[in-house]
Amino acid sequence: MLRVVISGPSGSGKGTIVQELIKYKNYKLSISATTRAKRKTEEDGVHYFFKTIDEFKQMIEQDELLEYTEFCGNFYGTPKSFVDKTIQDGFDILLEIEVNGALNIKEKYHDAILIFIIPPTFTKLKDRLIQRNTETTEVINYRLTRAKEELKLFKEYDYIIVNDDLDQAIKQINTIVESEKLRSFRQKEVIEKMLNN
Amino acid sequence: MLRVVISGPSGSGKGTIVQELIKYKNYKLSISATTRAKRKTEEDGVHYFFKTIDEFKQMIEQDELLEYTEFCGNFYGTPKSFVDKTIQDGFDILLEIEVNGALNIKEKYHDAILIFIIPPTFTKLKDRLIQRNTETTEVINYRLTRAKEELKLFKEYDYIIVNDDLDQAIKQINTIVESEKLRSFRQKEVIEKMLNN
Repeated sequence: MLRVVISGPSGSGKGTIVQELIKYKNYKLSISATTRAKRKTEEDGVHYFFKTIDEFKQMIEQDELLEYTEFCGNFYGTPKSFVDKTIQDGFDILLEIEVNGALNIKEKYHDAILIFIIPPTFTKLKDRLIQRNTETTEVINYRLTRAKEELKLFKEYDYIIVNDDLDQAIKQINTIVESEKLRSFRQKEVIEKMLNN
Repeated sequence: MLRVVISGPSGSGKGTIVQELIKYKNYKLSISATTRAKRKTEEDGVHYFFKTIDEFKQMIEQDELLEYTEFCGNFYGTPKSFVDKTIQDGFDILLEIEVNGALNIKEKYHDAILIFIIPPTFTKLKDRLIQRNTETTEVINYRLTRAKEELKLFKEYDYIIVNDDLDQAIKQINTIVESEKLRSFRQKEVIEKMLNN
């Protein structure tokens, strides 16, 4: 089973893509650990693993996180145990993670599949961010500058998906996942079984 | 467009797979050069590029062949120019080549896709070779020994296809080709275009 990391700039539509993908029965979504306060609608172990700062720091020290980051004074990270258990249970795990975190995952799991979602045009990215109507021009400009920086790192990713049409993007990600399962380094057991039968 | 190398032991069904694949309009089959005599049913530039020994040796000297081999006193090789032209014309080129030749292609084109076709079981491979009823037990045993040797090299290939069901095998190869086109190192132009629009 595969570790599939999905990244992309704000406005690339990666969140929608992930929500569509988990409708397929082979995928499970990675659950992050966080120190931020639990909202009323959220459930521990479903939306996040809610941790105190001490607990989170202990996870860092004991190398229990595949990657972590601080954002607005709160910590967010990916617990290794949940990812590994999901793989053992026979699912492909989806990790929606920003660029630096994604590269950390690749460092720990060389066979992780890194997929970068991009908008069809930069203008479209800008339009999407403006249409959201939830952010100031300053925040939007910050996100656009950051998007350009992130896009320069595209070569670090294994695959690029242009999110012009949602159905097409989902189909392409499923194609990548099916294809990756046929990679020779994942077929050692298949070869051995064939030779002995 | 992609250079797709298909290999597999005798009896793996690689020939049938290649014949099915070229029915899809994105593929063209690589045409080999050979010094063997043209048969009445064969056409120069369609089935083979027929060459004299001197012409063939000149092609070797001028590095015009991606790989070549001698078999029963005749030379067989893959002309580079035909492969390159086919790619330029916008087709994926299929090269049906044995293991050593395939590894030579990978050395010359790092982005070539090497696909290894295996039978579902070794017993099935044996059965297929016996059912052909065209070869002596000695030749069959030679082919089986050679198959085991070739199968040890599976890690040198990018992908392994178990040819249990022909339709499934064709579908899997098409999946690999579609997926490979989404690889980030093939998307430089897509990224640049996106950033400028």
